[in-house]
Amino acid sequence: MKKTTKLKEILHSPKTEFLMEAHNGLSAKIVEEAGFKGIWASGLSMSASLGVRDNNEASWTQVVDILEFMSDSTRIPILVDGDTGYGNFNNARKLVKKLEIIGLAGVCIEDKLFPKTNSFINGKAQPLASIEEFCGKLKAMKDTQIDPDFMVVARVEAFIAGWGLKEALKRAEAYRQAGADAVLVHSKESHVNEIKAFMKEWNNRHPVVIVPTKYYLTPTVEFEKMGISTVIWANHNLRASVTAMQAISKQILKEQSLIQVEKSIASVDEIFRLQNAEELQLAEKKYLPKNHTEQGTE
Amino acid sequence: MKKTTKLKEILHSPKTEFLMEAHNGLSAKIVEEAGFKGIWASGLSMSASLGVRDNNEASWTQVVDILEFMSDSTRIPILVDGDTGYGNFNNARKLVKKLEIIGLAGVCIEDKLFPKTNSFINGKAQPLASIEEFCGKLKAMKDTQIDPDFMVVARVEAFIAGWGLKEALKRAEAYRQAGADAVLVHSKESHVNEIKAFMKEWNNRHPVVIVPTKYYLTPTVEFEKMGISTVIWANHNLRASVTAMQAISKQILKEQSLIQVEKSIASVDEIFRLQNAEELQLAEKKYLPKNHTEQGTE
Amino acid sequence: MKKTTKLKEILHSPKTEFLMEAHNGLSAKIVEEAGFKGIWASGLSMSASLGVRDNNEASWTQVVDILEFMSDSTRIPILVDGDTGYGNFNNARKLVKKLEIIGLAGVCIEDKLFPKTNSFINGKAQPLASIEEFCGKLKAMKDTQIDPDFMVVARVEAFIAGWGLKEALKRAEAYRQAGADAVLVHSKESHVNEIKAFMKEWNNRHPVVIVPTKYYLTPTVEFEKMGISTVIWANHNLRASVTAMQAISKQILKEQSLIQVEKSIASVDEIFRLQNAEELQLAEKKYLPKNHTEQGTE
Amino acid sequence: MKKTTKLKEILHSPKTEFLMEAHNGLSAKIVEEAGFKGIWASGLSMSASLGVRDNNEASWTQVVDILEFMSDSTRIPILVDGDTGYGNFNNARKLVKKLEIIGLAGVCIEDKLFPKTNSFINGKAQPLASIEEFCGKLKAMKDTQIDPDFMVVARVEAFIAGWGLKEALKRAEAYRQAGADAVLVHSKESHVNEIKAFMKEWNNRHPVVIVPTKYYLTPTVEFEKMGISTVIWANHNLRASVTAMQAISKQILKEQSLIQVEKSIASVDEIFRLQNAEELQLAEKKYLPKNHTEQGTE
Repeated sequence: MKKTTKLKEILHSPKTEFLMEAHNGLSAKIVEEAGFKGIWASGLSMSASLGVRDNNEASWTQVVDILEFMSDSTRIPILVDGDTGYGNFNNARKLVKKLEIIGLAGVCIEDKLFPKTNSFINGKAQPLASIEEFCGKLKAMKDTQIDPDFMVVARVEAFIAGWGLKEALKRAEAYRQAGADAVLVHSKESHVNEIKAFMKEWNNRHPVVIVPTKYYLTPTVEFEKMGISTVIWANHNLRASVTAMQAISKQILKEQSLIQVEKSIASVDEIFRLQNAEELQLAEKKYLPKNHTEQGTE
Repeated sequence: MKKTTKLKEILHSPKTEFLMEAHNGLSAKIVEEAGFKGIWASGLSMSASLGVRDNNEASWTQVVDILEFMSDSTRIPILVDGDTGYGNFNNARKLVKKLEIIGLAGVCIEDKLFPKTNSFINGKAQPLASIEEFCGKLKAMKDTQIDPDFMVVARVEAFIAGWGLKEALKRAEAYRQAGADAVLVHSKESHVNEIKAFMKEWNNRHPVVIVPTKYYLTPTVEFEKMGISTVIWANHNLRASVTAMQAISKQILKEQSLIQVEKSIASVDEIFRLQNAEELQLAEKKYLPKNHTEQGTE
Repeated sequence: MKKTTKLKEILHSPKTEFLMEAHNGLSAKIVEEAGFKGIWASGLSMSASLGVRDNNEASWTQVVDILEFMSDSTRIPILVDGDTGYGNFNNARKLVKKLEIIGLAGVCIEDKLFPKTNSFINGKAQPLASIEEFCGKLKAMKDTQIDPDFMVVARVEAFIAGWGLKEALKRAEAYRQAGADAVLVHSKESHVNEIKAFMKEWNNRHPVVIVPTKYYLTPTVEFEKMGISTVIWANHNLRASVTAMQAISKQILKEQSLIQVEKSIASVDEIFRLQNAEELQLAEKKYLPKNHTEQGTE
Repeated sequence: MKKTTKLKEILHSPKTEFLMEAHNGLSAKIVEEAGFKGIWASGLSMSASLGVRDNNEASWTQVVDILEFMSDSTRIPILVDGDTGYGNFNNARKLVKKLEIIGLAGVCIEDKLFPKTNSFINGKAQPLASIEEFCGKLKAMKDTQIDPDFMVVARVEAFIAGWGLKEALKRAEAYRQAGADAVLVHSKESHVNEIKAFMKEWNNRHPVVIVPTKYYLTPTVEFEKMGISTVIWANHNLRASVTAMQAISKQILKEQSLIQVEKSIASVDEIFRLQNAEELQLAEKKYLPKNHTEQGTE
């Protein structure tokens, strides 16, 4: 089954499904091996791993380069956090073309302005895109895709920007009508009330995706009851890796030795396994000369 | 002080110094914050994080792109594992030009053939470059650099390839005479005997760098007694991050909830801090219009 | 003399100076060899040579990659057409950092919105950036540059957008006060009247750059009389190459032979000369083993 | 019809077919518009246009980036000059994967060593790859491709390296048996004798491609009589563009005016047409809000 079709099935599944965050080829492979059905390529995580901010400091082609490595190293579908589409409808439709050829399953765009700011950054209320402009962008993206199963998810930032339920519903409905395959309703509250209110009014008219980073205390059974299509665990691999690297770096600095740390971390052979080194060794037997001095004319 | 000068001081320090591995902008920043004086940009780690093998599957410009992010996010010097220089002397000297402009402090090249294979991969003995060819490469690199403090380290793979002490010494001396600023003597034994034998004969005639990944049980005090200039902890941040991500992915898959994991991992605010989000918020106050709504909702 | 200082001298020269368009490493070298003092890296030309539109379809890092090749192959200063800075002040200041490390001498940004549209494309009047927002961008760029001689040129699109002389003067003065090293006043009229009117009121208070693509019939002596600092011949290498390639392609298709075309085009040796192949041949003698079978262990 | 199938038909056509050189998206489009059936993405031309040498100074991913722009701007098939495959069989098969996803129709690799030297560069005889190693590379490439019509052409450098007819035939046959879809027999003589002798012995057992850059005086009817499958006009767009740009740059420098040159070069509107600016204007009407002011002036 195509990756796009797999993501489509996740979004349309009768039960609540889950996507796990990854930010490079390695973490994508780890998500796949853990058993998840799909990957969330997080904009926050990808930018953080590069060492830059979640404000479109990395160019869109640098993001696509990361996604290509992620796609190459996995078979499960990847939904990418495409920010605002990196500009207007024309940039967004160009993005769709590139994502399709590298094997991405879908893209989520948010109704903010380029360059974006992370939704959890405190500060002044973030301005939203006009509904008309954002719907035009969604239409352009859907008109551009070649594979009919490529998924375009519309992220509603109305709650984030402080506009309330009415605006969230109005936008979600407009995006649905414009052709979005699902809506992602985002909230930065520590409780699930905004989402709950939305779901009640929404009445299952189209798949809804959520990101419970801030309202993480809500039991998943509640999401299921509300009829949530897909839950995204949005940045936890990155955050786990940060904690681990900070700890190991401090420990090695202090102990000036590897003796204590060796058994607490993955072996070098495990790294080789994740890289699929074995396949290359077999291929060398198949494709390299027996008496391989590499080269030299005859 | 320039990053290159800082690395030069590390290599020439009377006491044993340490470099810690990083593989992207984020891990580089973590190494710096932990308190290390310098960073080892590991070829194994960078390739693994991309999801490809340590066999020059990533192009040399893709590696340079990673290094640029690492350099931009840190102030301590970075020594990069430059494999074989990605081809002949001409590729290697072009690499030096690019590394200098992005602010790398030095590069280590190894006397193997392009494309390289990781030194710890089992299989047939890996062929070495001829001494003459490798010395020409070192000379070309040293002749190319603009900053006199840019460091070129020559990695001797004679022990790895099974050629023994005599060949290791011969090569190290040839590389020293060709202009290398230090030699990295590599060993895949689980004990330190090869290195010890080398150091005894070498008699401190030039800085020696080691990578005790396999002989990690050797106490650092022994390295100091031998007169080792610099010890590289070569891949431990990557390996720690793998263990952490594998664990968190499995836990979240199983628990279908974030409740248990939230406190075991870095907070989202800690990610923002590592990205230096605060500087941007201050800059927005300085450079953006006061009533900056850009575009409002309808 | 640094490339930045060279460009500064061009902009401040008492007589009218000229920049010639280039769009890749090859054309940049040709401009230098022809005898020009500086290069204009045109956004239109760079996008057209890639085969995309002048609407920020190429990412800003793809543009920087082109500029790096141009800078590497020349010694004269390059002023790049930086469109709007590819986003807000933060994107623009990041651009400055990257341009400085690859050896660009300066950047020109225009007071339009991202993504941009070419100023000569017919259609609805193009919206302009607010003065306050654009001045903040200029300040951020000037505050970011490390080399004090790096030039930031502010392009005034008021005439292009149909706002007239008063707005053009108001903006030019605001940009001057915000720190721009020169202003580029753009006009799409086929006569020079807009520019003339501007220059009369401007009264030489700061260097003015012009792009007479549309009012090409105006003799250069008139520009000199007006006190124009620098004239940009903005796209003529690209346009000449298009004409030549269209003609040669058609001729070869029709004749199914190279006999007639061989003498009308540069020789293969001339291409090698432009690539500086000779230096590599000399370097091979210096750095490659005498009996060069390339490799093989000893 | 797929681009790959189109190229396959060209190579298997009963009459002699022609490929015309291009080196970026713009020249590729010009080749297509001229009426050619296919494009040769020349290694010499691509490197020269970047401003670097034809010695693998550009990385293989930088070449792939160029090819992607070329593929995106055209519908006719592109056969790329893939040098040696940029390393061993593993690099070459990775290249095939990337070429397929960006829509290339085929790749030609040559039996030399990485990094390559242009076949027309004077100097010492260039070493060849061993037959066994090169056949393993071809097999790996053919085993990797997903689309069965993707073409792998094996370039025989035996004549270039001075090994004569017997070696050329031996290699061509070995490459045919290893799975190459065609062989490219290269010669740097100013007459066609080497090719003629080869074709006589070869006896049409597999498609043969030639590059008559040096023996350009040979009438094409002779190639047809010999049974040549495909003739590559290998670098003539680049060479025509160089001549045109050198002339126009010198003229503008001297005349300090555009008056004389304007009519001799493509118009700005012709550049817009080549960029397909019109499609975007139509799309803006479709996807942008009616009253799209985005942001007004003050």
